[in-house]
Amino acid sequence: MKDKYIIIVGCGRLGAHVAKMFTRSRNSLVMIDKDATAFSRLSEEYSGFTIEADAVEQDTLLRAKIDQADVLVATTDDDNTNIMIAQVAREIHHVPEVMLRIYDPSRAKIYEGTGITTICTTLLAAEAFGQALSSQEGVTLP
Amino acid sequence: MKDKYIIIVGCGRLGAHVAKMFTRSRNSLVMIDKDATAFSRLSEEYSGFTIEADAVEQDTLLRAKIDQADVLVATTDDDNTNIMIAQVAREIHHVPEVMLRIYDPSRAKIYEGTGITTICTTLLAAEAFGQALSSQEGVTLP
Repeated sequence: MKDKYIIIVGCGRLGAHVAKMFTRSRNSLVMIDKDATAFSRLSEEYSGFTIEADAVEQDTLLRAKIDQADVLVATTDDDNTNIMIAQVAREIHHVPEVMLRIYDPSRAKIYEGTGITTICTTLLAAEAFGQALSSQEGVTLP
Repeated sequence: MKDKYIIIVGCGRLGAHVAKMFTRSRNSLVMIDKDATAFSRLSEEYSGFTIEADAVEQDTLLRAKIDQADVLVATTDDDNTNIMIAQVAREIHHVPEVMLRIYDPSRAKIYEGTGITTICTTLLAAEAFGQALSSQEGVTLP
């Protein structure tokens, strides 16, 4: 089974957790963040590369060898940044699998069917609360 | 079937979305936020009360009639605030179902078995990314 070359943009809690998850497998990882101190969130076993740069600048993605990437995951704290990076990765560099985190539920379904996977944390959490509530006796859910 | 009296603390994207979700059912809702402008996020059909106050101050929860509440959901942007409010709701006011949103994965499982439901958005999103990746051919996951 062929391992994947995965670029992660944004080394916040989510990016660092995703890196940890994929480090345990045999994929090759590159983490990009414009703030080098963010890399301290990476677990000790992280064995990938780190690039301190703004991924919105196209040169940064080229330095990360995006044209060889199988997967790009955009996890910065800014919806617009994630959307912009995901679109560049998908439409210019034709990365086969592009994923992004988004906060705004109204924008969560825009990319259905485009090869861009959108994970909306607001919707995920609301659904989880709803499921917890509906498992309680007597709660009426829509 | 008896409807529930639900207090939501924090009218950010998540709180507003949870309120919208529960407004569609016949539950009674109270939304608390220390910034009144946050209530503009509530959907037009929201029919519950709003209280502009800091829920960390115990008087605020009393004004929200917490002793009658069936459910409290803490969705502010601050993990510590959510934890504090959830503990007060559960341990002092004995709210039957207490739920909170948390960002920090390392604190997500602290409350298992205590009657406090912890929803960690970082873990939910990471799992969703992992599932999306593992559904792609050739990706090795732990």
